[in-house]
Amino acid sequence: MKTVGFIGLGVMGQGMVRNLRKAGFTVKGYNRTKEKGLVLEADGVEIVDTIQDVVTDVDVVISIVGYPQDVEQIYFEDGILDHAAPGTILIDMTTSSPALAERIAQEAAARDLQALDAPVTGGDLGAKNGTLAILVGGEEAPFVQAKPLFEAMGKSISLFGGPGKGQSAKLANQIAIAGSMIGTAEMLLFVTRSGIDPTQFIETIKSGSAGSWSLENLIPRVIAENYSPGFFVKHFIKDMRLALERGAEMGIATPGLALTKDLYEQLAELGHADSGTQALYLLLAERSRASVE
Amino acid sequence: MKTVGFIGLGVMGQGMVRNLRKAGFTVKGYNRTKEKGLVLEADGVEIVDTIQDVVTDVDVVISIVGYPQDVEQIYFEDGILDHAAPGTILIDMTTSSPALAERIAQEAAARDLQALDAPVTGGDLGAKNGTLAILVGGEEAPFVQAKPLFEAMGKSISLFGGPGKGQSAKLANQIAIAGSMIGTAEMLLFVTRSGIDPTQFIETIKSGSAGSWSLENLIPRVIAENYSPGFFVKHFIKDMRLALERGAEMGIATPGLALTKDLYEQLAELGHADSGTQALYLLLAERSRASVE
Repeated sequence: MKTVGFIGLGVMGQGMVRNLRKAGFTVKGYNRTKEKGLVLEADGVEIVDTIQDVVTDVDVVISIVGYPQDVEQIYFEDGILDHAAPGTILIDMTTSSPALAERIAQEAAARDLQALDAPVTGGDLGAKNGTLAILVGGEEAPFVQAKPLFEAMGKSISLFGGPGKGQSAKLANQIAIAGSMIGTAEMLLFVTRSGIDPTQFIETIKSGSAGSWSLENLIPRVIAENYSPGFFVKHFIKDMRLALERGAEMGIATPGLALTKDLYEQLAELGHADSGTQALYLLLAERSRASVE
Repeated sequence: MKTVGFIGLGVMGQGMVRNLRKAGFTVKGYNRTKEKGLVLEADGVEIVDTIQDVVTDVDVVISIVGYPQDVEQIYFEDGILDHAAPGTILIDMTTSSPALAERIAQEAAARDLQALDAPVTGGDLGAKNGTLAILVGGEEAPFVQAKPLFEAMGKSISLFGGPGKGQSAKLANQIAIAGSMIGTAEMLLFVTRSGIDPTQFIETIKSGSAGSWSLENLIPRVIAENYSPGFFVKHFIKDMRLALERGAEMGIATPGLALTKDLYEQLAELGHADSGTQALYLLLAERSRASVE
């Protein structure tokens, strides 16, 4: 497991590739918009023109692209499954559908390939610093073989079971975030409209039972009126839709998630698809103005 | 500020009174059901029979009772306001209505009394260990005078502004908790129905952006099928209703809080009013069974 074909050289992919290079792996890279990937040539990465090129003569193929339909495209249409040599390990690190991960694993096995789903949490900073949490689904054997690569890219690495379990774990993580986001955004609106200093308030309560990562990391950005993306609204909507879809497949009730997804869709319609998730506050504030008038 | 009349000797009150005694204050106590308070006689607390008795010959009156209607009863009907001597500081530490706190402060000022609203977070353990967060509203002068008492009972003490601001801060805290509860309960249901080990999952993600106090402290109790109350469902419903009421007065939108309150009311109807708030999981699991069948 020395050579890697890496598909998807956006902000996340670039950080991950650099950490693979630092750990001594040989990396070949592919990006749909080739120009965006060329910056990695300075790190000794060969940037190739096609999916067929990037999956040839490598031990492992890693992909981190945008949406499940992009994953389907590269695996089934552009030909990862058709062109990878038998024995290659295929790792999709896109946050995607558990059902699609199951289907890829099945198709891979039929071709003597081994597939893992391994979405991450920790954002672009985690990708850059090699501190991602990597949530893995698939068989034990390829997981063990791929572990040195995961360790180059992440800090907290966990195999949760067979194909799709990595995706399911990631979607569960996003469900908890949905609750934190709605709770802290409504909290902040209540605090500011009550005439209470929000920074003093957070300092007083943050170590108690209302404490959360969102409270400590995102709410201060809202107070500073900074809505730039750590995590894009449009990507969060994608994740929540995937979680709702999988929840429906399993027949489970997630009314909080359904509500939060609806609110974020309304936020995107207001022009905030490319804002950070903390912009939810703006939707609630907007609605409150409307109800007062 | 040496002598305290303390009204409400339940689990919270007992812990707080013991810490006042340890710090050297003289305490006189009153409880509606007198017998429950008698245990404090061993700590040198005189237990008296009436509100009139407990507010007489003291510098400070502290109350922590059940519901806003109980606060109204002791202040306006049982006669805290009528019987306290001019100059007495009146501190209500019940989680109650900001509007009621404002009304009490106004009536107190008209009688040359000084009122503070000072609800707490940290639960019975915080009360016992003197580690409560105390969220205060009222004037600066009585706050400064009462500070040694607050320091005997709590760790994080903050004055947020005039009358009612302590109550508003506490309700805002509960709004953030509502979001955490719905998010983590739905997350856990998704995890378990996906066939993922929930303890392994929490260990992997808890320091990331899904992290929260609820995730680390309440979800492990659900995994252990422990629904005993740290914080009662019935009290959380009370707090959420107060927050919604105040939110409506201010004209603000809190759809997540409204949903979570509805779900907890349904949980109480299933017989869980006296369970801990982590029992929300049971309602969602129940609904999911129903939707599968």
